Amino acid sequence: MVPSSRPALLTDHYELTMVSAALRDGTADRHCVFEVFTRRLPTGRRYGVVAGTARLVDLLAEFRFDEADVAFLRDTGVVDEPTAEWLSRYRFSGDIDGYAEGELYFPGSPILTVSGTFAECVLLETLTLSVLNHDSAIAAAAARMVTAARGRTLIEMGARRANEEAAVAAARASYLAGFGYTSNLAAGQRYRIPTAGTAAHAFTLLHDDEPTAFASQVAAQGKSTTLLVDTYDIAQGIRNAIAVAGPDLRAVRIDSGDLAVLAQHSRELLDSLGALDTKIIVSGDLDEYAIAALAAEPVDMYGAGTAVVTGSGAPTAGLVYKLVEVDGRSVVKRSEHKATVGGRKTAARRHKPSGTATEEVVVSQGAPEPQPGDRALQQRYVTNGEPEPLPSLTESREHLRQCLISIPWEGLKLSAGDPTIPVTVVHADQPEG
Amino acid sequence: MVPSSRPALLTDHYELTMVSAALRDGTADRHCVFEVFTRRLPTGRRYGVVAGTARLVDLLAEFRFDEADVAFLRDTGVVDEPTAEWLSRYRFSGDIDGYAEGELYFPGSPILTVSGTFAECVLLETLTLSVLNHDSAIAAAAARMVTAARGRTLIEMGARRANEEAAVAAARASYLAGFGYTSNLAAGQRYRIPTAGTAAHAFTLLHDDEPTAFASQVAAQGKSTTLLVDTYDIAQGIRNAIAVAGPDLRAVRIDSGDLAVLAQHSRELLDSLGALDTKIIVSGDLDEYAIAALAAEPVDMYGAGTAVVTGSGAPTAGLVYKLVEVDGRSVVKRSEHKATVGGRKTAARRHKPSGTATEEVVVSQGAPEPQPGDRALQQRYVTNGEPEPLPSLTESREHLRQCLISIPWEGLKLSAGDPTIPVTVVHADQPEG
Repeated sequence: MVPSSRPALLTDHYELTMVSAALRDGTADRHCVFEVFTRRLPTGRRYGVVAGTARLVDLLAEFRFDEADVAFLRDTGVVDEPTAEWLSRYRFSGDIDGYAEGELYFPGSPILTVSGTFAECVLLETLTLSVLNHDSAIAAAAARMVTAARGRTLIEMGARRANEEAAVAAARASYLAGFGYTSNLAAGQRYRIPTAGTAAHAFTLLHDDEPTAFASQVAAQGKSTTLLVDTYDIAQGIRNAIAVAGPDLRAVRIDSGDLAVLAQHSRELLDSLGALDTKIIVSGDLDEYAIAALAAEPVDMYGAGTAVVTGSGAPTAGLVYKLVEVDGRSVVKRSEHKATVGGRKTAARRHKPSGTATEEVVVSQGAPEPQPGDRALQQRYVTNGEPEPLPSLTESREHLRQCLISIPWEGLKLSAGDPTIPVTVVHADQPEG
Repeated sequence: MVPSSRPALLTDHYELTMVSAALRDGTADRHCVFEVFTRRLPTGRRYGVVAGTARLVDLLAEFRFDEADVAFLRDTGVVDEPTAEWLSRYRFSGDIDGYAEGELYFPGSPILTVSGTFAECVLLETLTLSVLNHDSAIAAAAARMVTAARGRTLIEMGARRANEEAAVAAARASYLAGFGYTSNLAAGQRYRIPTAGTAAHAFTLLHDDEPTAFASQVAAQGKSTTLLVDTYDIAQGIRNAIAVAGPDLRAVRIDSGDLAVLAQHSRELLDSLGALDTKIIVSGDLDEYAIAALAAEPVDMYGAGTAVVTGSGAPTAGLVYKLVEVDGRSVVKRSEHKATVGGRKTAARRHKPSGTATEEVVVSQGAPEPQPGDRALQQRYVTNGEPEPLPSLTESREHLRQCLISIPWEGLKLSAGDPTIPVTVVHADQPEG
């Protein structure tokens, strides 16, 4: 009973109920536009990061209902016979447009637009949101850690604190956000992300004493390994490490205690032992704030686990998938507290001549009036059901890096604040201001 | 590039590095015992709920390194040739014991014990923790919601706010904790959990007006459906619903607004329309506190989404996988702030004659002195690599229900507090007190 990876049933029951009723009443073929956006960022966050879109497009290519799926849905009464027939032939044949992976977003940014018939589009709601809500949440948290690390390398090592498959997606999102490595081998295999890892406390405990464990590790991996020095006493652990590996040892890792104090003492001790180039890697419940607090310490690399894979307090991005247009007619749910604008939207980000972003302009059923410094934010992902070529993960990573350079500097502060730039959403027949 | 479900690479790089070094130095075959436990519960939580163990055992049956996996590990230099050979033959042949799914746990409870050679056990660290940390986090949050709902039915509908595969596991954990339904079809298919769902606002917006949408839904699904009445005006929505379906309509759903006030008004209106038996289902950012606050309102069913799938503030359970014994020798990491006890542990829960739990007694390298009212907490999951028969998900669900009855009533309070019962962890040669 190992989970299958067919994505079509990663779907909410109600989507099939709606398809069933719409097929029966003839509205299933109405041309619809659904948009993905957020009404608000997690409390105090200044930007969101689009992540997961390429993963979603890959999953859509496999989004089919096989015989067992259809039988399950028919036998449990989720769908009637005509719907079962329709599902067995299902293949998304519409269009998908959206923000690039690694793009920043703000409340109201239309980060994904799915268009086609009602029935084919409504079926994609849950999978689309699952992928984007998770991956974007992780990417946003990871991007803040990258900023806090000020150029020092980060290793994602949180697989053990996340669902086993979510962990792989989290490794991808962290790498997109600028992490240098992941501990997760499946992420290495699937996405060619560099993996890293050396030893746990268990390896030291397994051996009769610490020097024996270190000697074994160095024999297997050479001096370019990282020795974990805090199983017993850290100072003695460092002395043992250098005694065994010599002053050319690449790195030591400290996984517990007051990391600021320990990093200083460890650096002094390593230097006194002649290990001037031996790096210090720290880990243990690091989030963006803890990383920032270590900026002045002699730390070379950070390992982040729980905080990054759980979105550092914001484990989901709060993105929604809303019907905004039916047969060219703009639609909107009226009972919303905040007025939202219906209709298919086109978005551009405005920049000063210096390149600093100033605002995002989103126009429904039209396009922003072009201005110098505008950058169109939407690209084509899928045309008539066929995926378009996508940037590589490395390119998306660079895109985010450039985006973070372009926002006003307040946007990079870790403290709670408002979205860095405003988003103005208007209908084409209204003035922008 | 749809993710594979082979579990062997859902593993951290360092586990293979350790195996590699241990194979080379001859320690790989030392007999080891690893235990899974938590040092603390999430802030203010009074109990944890074991969940995911059966899912883990299923994944272990597929935990093999196929040719592509081994090639990846060899080509990227993660492992050397002898380790690659060893991995290609890998199959866990040790034993696994642990708490039942649905059992409560507290700081120090040895919820899973994995024993065998160092190499075969250390490889399971990440997968074991990923599954148990995620599923237990969701089950604990869900159990609190079930308590808060006081017998009213809960529907899990959070798939869109979680990674797509995590969502399926979350649906399972929520059902284990006492939820009645899930929206997630994959969870229905894999675990035979009842699924539920009717329509989104998009279905109403798709149609020319609300009565047309309701008529279509009733035509497709009959009067036993649930009509979503808050797309436009709720009072008018309820009038439209009853006008279309008649007073035998099974239920209406309200997904926004002040649910307490709206539930009252909706009940009055339904009653005035003669729809005395029409149920009211509410949803929209419900967590255990919001559910508790609706206890006095005329609500029949709750839909919970984001809060349950993200663990309601505690998205991971904080469980660790620690080496506690090597060739019969108790081992413990010395630099831990809190003293921990090494050695393989045996656990019993003590109860008053009334059946109320009073404490958990955990003895290392021995067993608790038997007392009347003791219940042994560990069962065999895997023997020599072969899985033992397990309780059904329904049986595990009932087990948790009974466990929650057995704890002191303070344990069911939603407010922050200490663990409900103390856990005493001692070595067999120490006095228990």
